[in-house]
Amino acid sequence: MRTLTHPDRAQLRLEGVLDALANPVRLRIVQRLAEGEELTCGTVLPDIPASSATHHWRVLRESGVLFARRQGRVIVHSLRRDDLDARFPGLLDAVLAAMASESRSRNLG
Amino acid sequence: MRTLTHPDRAQLRLEGVLDALANPVRLRIVQRLAEGEELTCGTVLPDIPASSATHHWRVLRESGVLFARRQGRVIVHSLRRDDLDARFPGLLDAVLAAMASESRSRNLG
Repeated sequence: MRTLTHPDRAQLRLEGVLDALANPVRLRIVQRLAEGEELTCGTVLPDIPASSATHHWRVLRESGVLFARRQGRVIVHSLRRDDLDARFPGLLDAVLAAMASESRSRNLG
Repeated sequence: MRTLTHPDRAQLRLEGVLDALANPVRLRIVQRLAEGEELTCGTVLPDIPASSATHHWRVLRESGVLFARRQGRVIVHSLRRDDLDARFPGLLDAVLAAMASESRSRNLG
């Protein structure tokens, strides 16, 4: 069983986090996680092929955006909000606020 | 002479801006522009090949991060701070603060 590696807080890199966030699927994952949910691959991305979903989860984990842990046969993900807020104060909040604002514009448009 | 197209403020997309910022060269450009400078390609990226520099400037312009205008034979760039702050409040400031913090860590390390 492969180890789920995570960067330490001090290893988080701004470019890596921005790159991980610069994708609509991954932004949606982060939005869901920010609502306090813990998510497995399958629950959040029903319309994404498994191989593609795996890629997205890995990018988020390796950049330090989320934490993944095995629970029986599934992998459960949670947001590393404390680490992100400590390393890049205000960034996650600004991204989440921008997403909420874009959703509102789309719903009005 | 090709027209320099720019998205309107309302057309700025979060994913596009995050993607534009998720690169070390482009982050450095944004950092310089945020200091209030107006920059031409040549001045800021002396060690980057011209074709690569052109690509970076275009990504930043097309995502709406900067404004480009012709001035005689050169193109002068400036940051679209008002538009970015209006559409994604706090995002640019968080990114600039994170960059400053990473620079300090590197200088200490």
